[in-house]
Amino acid sequence: MAGLFVSFEGVDGVGKTTQVERLRQYLESRGRTVLVTREPGGTPLGATLRRLLLRNVAEDAADIAPRAEALIFAADRAQHVAETIRPALARGEVVITDRYLDSSLAYQAGGRELTAKEIRDLSMWATNGLLPARTYLLDMDPAASHARLQHDEDRMESAGDDFQNRTRRAFLDLAADEPDRFRVIDAAQTVETVWERIREDIDRLIDGLIDGSAGETSAESVKATEEPVGKSSGESR
Amino acid sequence: MAGLFVSFEGVDGVGKTTQVERLRQYLESRGRTVLVTREPGGTPLGATLRRLLLRNVAEDAADIAPRAEALIFAADRAQHVAETIRPALARGEVVITDRYLDSSLAYQAGGRELTAKEIRDLSMWATNGLLPARTYLLDMDPAASHARLQHDEDRMESAGDDFQNRTRRAFLDLAADEPDRFRVIDAAQTVETVWERIREDIDRLIDGLIDGSAGETSAESVKATEEPVGKSSGESR
Repeated sequence: MAGLFVSFEGVDGVGKTTQVERLRQYLESRGRTVLVTREPGGTPLGATLRRLLLRNVAEDAADIAPRAEALIFAADRAQHVAETIRPALARGEVVITDRYLDSSLAYQAGGRELTAKEIRDLSMWATNGLLPARTYLLDMDPAASHARLQHDEDRMESAGDDFQNRTRRAFLDLAADEPDRFRVIDAAQTVETVWERIREDIDRLIDGLIDGSAGETSAESVKATEEPVGKSSGESR
Repeated sequence: MAGLFVSFEGVDGVGKTTQVERLRQYLESRGRTVLVTREPGGTPLGATLRRLLLRNVAEDAADIAPRAEALIFAADRAQHVAETIRPALARGEVVITDRYLDSSLAYQAGGRELTAKEIRDLSMWATNGLLPARTYLLDMDPAASHARLQHDEDRMESAGDDFQNRTRRAFLDLAADEPDRFRVIDAAQTVETVWERIREDIDRLIDGLIDGSAGETSAESVKATEEPVGKSSGESR
């Protein structure tokens, strides 16, 4: 059976974890082997790198330079792809990751130091070009989520709204750039309704009703995009 | 006074540490403020990353993927440049580093996974394009160094010679590609003779007799190559 690579994206609190678990159970009920994973910190090396970034901030050491930070996130992703994701795809499994390179683009490229293109180029090199066949973007208006939470005493504290709105906008722009890969789902709907949208889409994807079998990642295509055999240092310069 | 960035390269045991120290003392006697530093591990973050690479190997954890390793070395270099090297150059100091990006090219690109161009592109992004004004390559034939060490019981153990020869060749190829930046010095000569070669060159470099003042890194040019102000995420995609 061919491997399938799926990612979930969106700001915190939109319900990614719940929908990832639903999808896992559903695909297992359809007889697939499913690997659920996450970024950052999806491997032991990645978890150590993530702690390093957090500890460094906490201890008030010298600030981590923006390029160093981006390279450490990219190292986490490179290890995640090489150690976890590609081997599972090669075994014909479904890999579901909670966050992938779009999160780097939406969160890191919002700063003034680095452009989205730089972050994307770095991630594409780190992963040797591996993109998900499908990315579910769970999208919600921060204002709407505030309105729903009328019992929340902090609902008037919208200090984080600018950041939330900017990140949301960045995710939506990414989805608009790659409509074949992304499905944008209104996460303000009920859990059941969101899940129905995902289930319908994944059924069509697996049954090959969307672009033939283009959504599937075959073991052969995984092999074909593995590390190229580099020239020896003597030949390559 | 304008900052000046100098690196020393070469395989282990050719005498880099001794010559770095000579150069420091000499430049201080000429009234310059000198910062001596090294890679990998020239900053607290870099030292932690270096330990991470070593520990991971020692504990027999999952192998670090070649791309993850290259990205971690690049993160070390990015932090080194941003936290240590650029600020010192901006203050008008002389920065002498024991190893810089040429070591990554000579050692990492020898493997079959990654090409020299990929490693170079990564380092140039990490450093935002900062190259030394001068690189001293201390070069020695491993066979000659073995012959000199006739008292060494291990002298017949030349198992490492292939690797040493390949790395030496890689350094010489890099020097041939950038003759303006590199000075190749025969490290089989006495410490005094090697030092005389370096002193003559650095005198001409500082006195501007080599390409006018092109060797010097002015505070303005350092500023000019600092982090560009990236577009906002909305504009850049």
